[in-house]
Amino acid sequence: MNITDLDTPTLVADLDVLERNINGMAALCDQLGIPLRVHTKTHKVPEIAKLQVAAGSQGITCQKLGEAEVMVDAGVDNILIPYNIVGKPKLKRLTALTKRAKVIVALDSAETATGISQQAIADDCVVPVIVELDTGSGRCGVQSPQKAQRLAQQIMKMQGIDFQGMMTYPSNLRAKPFIEETLDLLSSDGIPVNIISGGGTGSEAASKEIGCTETRSGSYVYEGMTRIGNSEMLTPERCVLRVITTVVSTPTPERIIIDGGMKTFASYPPTPYGYIIEHPDAKIYGMSVEHGHVNVSECSHRFKVGEQLSVIPLHQGMTSNLHDELICVRDNKVEAIWKIAGRGRVK
Amino acid sequence: MNITDLDTPTLVADLDVLERNINGMAALCDQLGIPLRVHTKTHKVPEIAKLQVAAGSQGITCQKLGEAEVMVDAGVDNILIPYNIVGKPKLKRLTALTKRAKVIVALDSAETATGISQQAIADDCVVPVIVELDTGSGRCGVQSPQKAQRLAQQIMKMQGIDFQGMMTYPSNLRAKPFIEETLDLLSSDGIPVNIISGGGTGSEAASKEIGCTETRSGSYVYEGMTRIGNSEMLTPERCVLRVITTVVSTPTPERIIIDGGMKTFASYPPTPYGYIIEHPDAKIYGMSVEHGHVNVSECSHRFKVGEQLSVIPLHQGMTSNLHDELICVRDNKVEAIWKIAGRGRVK
Repeated sequence: MNITDLDTPTLVADLDVLERNINGMAALCDQLGIPLRVHTKTHKVPEIAKLQVAAGSQGITCQKLGEAEVMVDAGVDNILIPYNIVGKPKLKRLTALTKRAKVIVALDSAETATGISQQAIADDCVVPVIVELDTGSGRCGVQSPQKAQRLAQQIMKMQGIDFQGMMTYPSNLRAKPFIEETLDLLSSDGIPVNIISGGGTGSEAASKEIGCTETRSGSYVYEGMTRIGNSEMLTPERCVLRVITTVVSTPTPERIIIDGGMKTFASYPPTPYGYIIEHPDAKIYGMSVEHGHVNVSECSHRFKVGEQLSVIPLHQGMTSNLHDELICVRDNKVEAIWKIAGRGRVK
Repeated sequence: MNITDLDTPTLVADLDVLERNINGMAALCDQLGIPLRVHTKTHKVPEIAKLQVAAGSQGITCQKLGEAEVMVDAGVDNILIPYNIVGKPKLKRLTALTKRAKVIVALDSAETATGISQQAIADDCVVPVIVELDTGSGRCGVQSPQKAQRLAQQIMKMQGIDFQGMMTYPSNLRAKPFIEETLDLLSSDGIPVNIISGGGTGSEAASKEIGCTETRSGSYVYEGMTRIGNSEMLTPERCVLRVITTVVSTPTPERIIIDGGMKTFASYPPTPYGYIIEHPDAKIYGMSVEHGHVNVSECSHRFKVGEQLSVIPLHQGMTSNLHDELICVRDNKVEAIWKIAGRGRVK
């Protein structure tokens, strides 16, 4: 089937570009000497995770336990979940998953650690964990090297839970003093550190420089318009995803309406929501739930109802999460249809 | 099962409030003397559509063909699709659906009408249609009564397509001259008008006053924080939906992190993203993909990791579209689990 025969709106990935991005990041990390642990939240597709592992990634990262379960079901066996696992239902799922694959989880409190420890004891397993450092995200993470040390000390006293190291977010040069001071404090306690996890896309060199043992790069796999323009190398041709849309209305000479809105693209600000490949001078200036509103006043082309337009979405991960399937094309021919199996796995 | 035993984040509906909202709108429309054709895009749940029809709605509205297919599969047999159906794959699906249920579609161009006509002739059926008027939406719709007349004349000459009337969006008093002039022009041509479809929630009286034959009210079914505060009658107790979340991190005294972010709530601006029922003075000030960032500096309560918080989401329809299931509760006990069968049906 040709790409132009697809019903719309539909999410399409160009496999040539996908493979180039995957191999390019693998080569960059090889060159820098930092192991890659790809973050799969961008795509949520087991087939893509396996391509990334085959290209050299030492494992994967899943943002939620439900996404990790999907990946283990598909045969991926080394997963970091950089998220506090809290509450009885999830703790039971975590210990069950631990018995099927190598699963490392991040945490930032004694409460989370205690929950994991108690469930692991009950279920007769050991869960490897790392402590999350808030190196500037203003989100989760312990707030100081002293708090990281204190939490590591508490974990070392617990059963069923195995302290493995730490993770940073974000991962940049400003994180270096936090990491080094934490390492010094842990060293003085005789607590070994095996993992310092950093990331993501664009911070590989910095992660190496601040001493990380791996990088959780994720968005590179698709690339997106948020990074396009930041570098000469990043052009629309580097972007894997397209939402194929159809013009459904041409109500005025200045405005056309396409059949994808916030339910197709994610209502992620800021505008222009996406980049129209065939007509970059046509600007998506607004979206309602099922309609995209496009200003064509700068275009010499006269748009017709029924015409298809290929749009690079602004936020690749959020857009992927709205679609059940990824239509994979090569030279504009459909080669495969992959299920976005991790879509909606928020638990 | 009790609501507090649910794994989180999860989308919950209070059935008592749902029934009250459904019955309240049915009573209002009865009193105003305007038939109701509920818009189901807010919930996308066949069970709820059937409750609305049982309460007196003369049919339903689905924003996309795929949502209509789901509703017909579930036994709903009278559906308006206020959307231009364009392209061969969709036209074939439309004629197939027309043979299973009464399906009316809106359109705003001769191109859309021609496509429907040709497919209907090929498939030996007749599709009833209405013309969309742009009465101020700045989206789809013909731009003048003269253009509405011209399109109606064109449709009257086509086979396989049956002109039934018009629809307005938005539906307010400013739309009255547009409608009346169109009616006059069609009357002078001897073209009968059976349907003038208006909507939605909050515009029922205006729709009656401008001559609409039905109102496509939708968001009333859940009510949401965008309307709360606009009227004394609209309090959080009128809102059906809650996202049950868990506190997963308490990194600073001012900040807590909950386990739902943009993938759970929809990244629909503006802030504060949602209303925390147990602690209205805790403000969700930011969201990343899987985390909600909450400012608790105004709260006397000391939040703990593991605590559950019930959040009324800001945009009910977009949030529903992110979840596969709706957990239905009464008096905080789970009574049913309904599939959000129309989720993701963007085609």
